[in-house]
Amino acid sequence: MIELEKPFCAISQAIRQQHPLVHHITNYVTAGFCADAALAIEASPMMADEPAEMGEIAGMSDALVCNLGTFNVRQQESFFLAAKTAHAKGTPVVLDPVGVMSSQLRLETAQQLLTSGVITILKGNSSEGRTLLGWDKGPGKGVDSLSDAHPEKIAAALAETFHCTAVVTGAVDAVSDGRRHYLGMNGTPYLSRITGAGCMTGTLMGAAAAVCQDGIMAALWAITCMNTAAEEAEKDCPGPGTFRVRLMDALSHHDGTTLAARFKGKRL
Amino acid sequence: MIELEKPFCAISQAIRQQHPLVHHITNYVTAGFCADAALAIEASPMMADEPAEMGEIAGMSDALVCNLGTFNVRQQESFFLAAKTAHAKGTPVVLDPVGVMSSQLRLETAQQLLTSGVITILKGNSSEGRTLLGWDKGPGKGVDSLSDAHPEKIAAALAETFHCTAVVTGAVDAVSDGRRHYLGMNGTPYLSRITGAGCMTGTLMGAAAAVCQDGIMAALWAITCMNTAAEEAEKDCPGPGTFRVRLMDALSHHDGTTLAARFKGKRL
Amino acid sequence: MIELEKPFCAISQAIRQQHPLVHHITNYVTAGFCADAALAIEASPMMADEPAEMGEIAGMSDALVCNLGTFNVRQQESFFLAAKTAHAKGTPVVLDPVGVMSSQLRLETAQQLLTSGVITILKGNSSEGRTLLGWDKGPGKGVDSLSDAHPEKIAAALAETFHCTAVVTGAVDAVSDGRRHYLGMNGTPYLSRITGAGCMTGTLMGAAAAVCQDGIMAALWAITCMNTAAEEAEKDCPGPGTFRVRLMDALSHHDGTTLAARFKGKRL
Repeated sequence: MIELEKPFCAISQAIRQQHPLVHHITNYVTAGFCADAALAIEASPMMADEPAEMGEIAGMSDALVCNLGTFNVRQQESFFLAAKTAHAKGTPVVLDPVGVMSSQLRLETAQQLLTSGVITILKGNSSEGRTLLGWDKGPGKGVDSLSDAHPEKIAAALAETFHCTAVVTGAVDAVSDGRRHYLGMNGTPYLSRITGAGCMTGTLMGAAAAVCQDGIMAALWAITCMNTAAEEAEKDCPGPGTFRVRLMDALSHHDGTTLAARFKGKRL
Repeated sequence: MIELEKPFCAISQAIRQQHPLVHHITNYVTAGFCADAALAIEASPMMADEPAEMGEIAGMSDALVCNLGTFNVRQQESFFLAAKTAHAKGTPVVLDPVGVMSSQLRLETAQQLLTSGVITILKGNSSEGRTLLGWDKGPGKGVDSLSDAHPEKIAAALAETFHCTAVVTGAVDAVSDGRRHYLGMNGTPYLSRITGAGCMTGTLMGAAAAVCQDGIMAALWAITCMNTAAEEAEKDCPGPGTFRVRLMDALSHHDGTTLAARFKGKRL
Repeated sequence: MIELEKPFCAISQAIRQQHPLVHHITNYVTAGFCADAALAIEASPMMADEPAEMGEIAGMSDALVCNLGTFNVRQQESFFLAAKTAHAKGTPVVLDPVGVMSSQLRLETAQQLLTSGVITILKGNSSEGRTLLGWDKGPGKGVDSLSDAHPEKIAAALAETFHCTAVVTGAVDAVSDGRRHYLGMNGTPYLSRITGAGCMTGTLMGAAAAVCQDGIMAALWAITCMNTAAEEAEKDCPGPGTFRVRLMDALSHHDGTTLAARFKGKRL
């Protein structure tokens, strides 16, 4: 897609040159995988969630990723402290509301973050998105969901409701900022056979948003980077162990021109 | 072993069809590996340990795995809350009392869970099993133990004492529900060269117990699935890094007929 | 280097024979990787950070590794409790002050541990080392730093100031105990493309210090073991995913004679 080449090249190059510091307040299940994904694309990850150091760390970071994966009340305090600091400095904040359909406390926390206007990019699966909109959550349980037939409707509604860039992931990914609407069709079902594919995509969004003010392009770069790496990784793949290894290898070769050329999808 | 084929096929198929949601309250060392193992066999993992959301999450899950690996008092509260909810709903609960020989607090927590009658399957190494029985703990330190000469005695005593299915892992694995007693002899010493082999076996037991009411068969399926995958993974293996990758690949190909055919062991 | 062969052989053999129990109070990002590294070299890892069990677990361990990677105040208490117990027993304590340049609380905690005289080996990158000395922290952000032109000056100053063995890692590693000063020049930039290379080196130092009273030799063994494994892993390596797998494979083959022969560096 011709309109993506220029921004994708700019993002890939800037990450490689600036090594943006991506502060994560995230879950302990996929933290290591996310840190590896950040390093693979040449960003600089930092995971920290002690409330007492949120001001300092959020203050020096180039992006903040808030992931509710193993939510606890200590992290809840840190989400608010860090997001407030980041927002005040103009630092982009990505929210990944993992499992928000499974816990009232996660839902309240995500909604409070979203309505306080500090979130730059909201990224979730269709069950998470629908839950945040107060819609029927659809066929999802735990932290996973089935793909929605119309993710673009969910993304557009999230973007309008919460005044941010919204990404709804699934077999087809939808990205919207309320004005512009894209579908992304790269990827492979293999991504759901390893843990943390969604979390790593959030990491990539944080890195991209750190170097690109346009949330739509940052989000599209991140999903395309993850999904085309997955396409490469699944070739003759003997199983999910090997898939994870190859995915990390493939992520490290990101290149804006190639990503734009491999992008399958469209602007709506 | 002919009597295993039917239940093993039923378990493998049911996990693939139902994708049981396995709620883990577990350690941050192996959480990612356990989530990957769950996804490899096509179960759906969820790690969550905030006390405030235990009612909701345990209430929607198909199995609960309580693992004491990086025990803390916040998790202690969650163990009791989640196990109580799970038990009330008839949801199976697996207890992996990691390192119970190394800490009085772990021992008290494990004993309290066991004596309250909420545990379906108790799975540990011989030092852990002996400690729970008040026996000499044998040659183990930290979270590891050497294999016991008579794991079947420990398993039988645990099953009788705590009225549950008991599994004692080692070079030879023993499974007992107090009435039926099995030995499993699959596996490779390589499993002790990666972290989380025991924890992942607990995950597999949770998934199997979610779809099979017979704790003995669920436990045998899980140890056979893990151990035969390990046998496959160790062929010409250059080291533990590669072993972990191949183990995950092999887990994803589980098939009840093959598992039953490869099972080495006997009913006592 | 001829003077290293004897101590390196002794360390490699002792780890393989004694399987020293290395207690980690560490971050949830790299805990799994560190546990795998410990098992790869045939040490026995245990991660535990609940204050209430620190006395017991530190009391039975052969080494303690304190890593500030995902610092929180609960861990702060555990650092002091465990280090005090370890020190009283003569158990070596490794401090890895991850990200100490990024948080006042980490700095205070590290300084308090260092000035209380309980640390055997202090290991950090140049930014961390400079920060602990009250020097300008140099070009580092988050948890990463660029290599310093003169790491040996930082290491010597740390060793003198804090009366311990000090290691400053980077493209060139420096080790000092205030009397003896070494440079190590093994390794590859690839190590900075995966998360936890530094943390795993701390794990290796803990295992080596458990079996070798000479902090300098323990530290040199650990950096040489990690860095020569990395040199082996990077050959024709397609990316960081594969690099991590091969690194673990290579670590498992450690051998004192080979490590000493491959050592590049010098005594100053």
